[in-house]
Amino acid sequence: MEKTTDSPADNPDVRERLLAEALRLFTSRGYAATTVREIVEAAGVTKPVLYYYFGSKEGLYLEIMNGIGSLFDQRVDALRMTNGTVRERLLHLFSGMFDGARMNLGAVRLAYAIYFGPPQGAPFIDFHRFFDQVLAIVDSLVAEGMETGEIRPCDRHPLVWTLVGSYHTILEEQICRTPPRVDRDGLCAVINMILDGAAPRSAAVRAEGELI
Amino acid sequence: MEKTTDSPADNPDVRERLLAEALRLFTSRGYAATTVREIVEAAGVTKPVLYYYFGSKEGLYLEIMNGIGSLFDQRVDALRMTNGTVRERLLHLFSGMFDGARMNLGAVRLAYAIYFGPPQGAPFIDFHRFFDQVLAIVDSLVAEGMETGEIRPCDRHPLVWTLVGSYHTILEEQICRTPPRVDRDGLCAVINMILDGAAPRSAAVRAEGELI
Repeated sequence: MEKTTDSPADNPDVRERLLAEALRLFTSRGYAATTVREIVEAAGVTKPVLYYYFGSKEGLYLEIMNGIGSLFDQRVDALRMTNGTVRERLLHLFSGMFDGARMNLGAVRLAYAIYFGPPQGAPFIDFHRFFDQVLAIVDSLVAEGMETGEIRPCDRHPLVWTLVGSYHTILEEQICRTPPRVDRDGLCAVINMILDGAAPRSAAVRAEGELI
Repeated sequence: MEKTTDSPADNPDVRERLLAEALRLFTSRGYAATTVREIVEAAGVTKPVLYYYFGSKEGLYLEIMNGIGSLFDQRVDALRMTNGTVRERLLHLFSGMFDGARMNLGAVRLAYAIYFGPPQGAPFIDFHRFFDQVLAIVDSLVAEGMETGEIRPCDRHPLVWTLVGSYHTILEEQICRTPPRVDRDGLCAVINMILDGAAPRSAAVRAEGELI
């Protein structure tokens, strides 16, 4: 369909500016409290420009949330394809997700505000799927580690929750504290420590012996 | 000061009903969106009764939050006084905090909504102190465990974050999922697994040998 002459010409800068200002306002003032007028004023455009690109405030919100959702999916898919030991792949997965979240802290903060905050009338987003997807991937990596002998036979459930649970709290630290008290290296130290503890015991003692 | 005749007589039931209805409304509708009128109607009293007991909506909110804060402090104090091994004391601490949170899930949910949610004009509460206090207690218990030889010498930082981080995510599971996928026993399995991994390796191998 050809665009009518009074539609704004497609302009990636304007589109990105609207997304950035909406995210900033949704996070600082709240989704419900932010008006279309405030967003367009902050982006230096008129209301029809916002309607042209996103249809509505809801459309703009969905674009932000679906954008971060797609980035998460792409990143997790890419992080799963690595070869290497289970330890290397878990470190790659967690540090890669950590980097992705750090690059999009504003959107992660907004997701937390919508998920835990009071009802704000925002369109539904299935936030649970992100956590559940990580649980499933880590569970399958832990299962593989037991098959290859990298991880000693034990109940997978507490080990998976320890790995994902520690990661998840360290992620929250990034959005809650300035500066965060655990960084990327700290995250890797946590994952390494958990996996050292879950290694076959005789191997761990051998490794310790070799170090001494 | 003697109460005037038109002040409501002190009535613990009325007071508790106001607290319960306010908590329910603050959590389901949001703090900012809840009016004094809605609270008193839900509690079946008149506005002056709310003002008599709490002064204002802010006063009612502070009473709820300071109430849960005091419960947390009392519980953590009580949980710290236990004798026993470091493992026993960590299990006692975490499962006791877990029980306390489960008994007050509504107030914990409200704290999360205020902490992560959009600005709602609620009076300031230092939510950070709860997490930080747990970090400090666990850190000192881990240090003690290294002195007594229950925990092998290592960097305390990742171990403390693994313990507190796993607990924290399992706590969030209680407020986010119905039913939660980790219960009290699951929490204890997680703490035990982390401590098994952090035990001196030769002792762990001996224990494993004894089991075979």
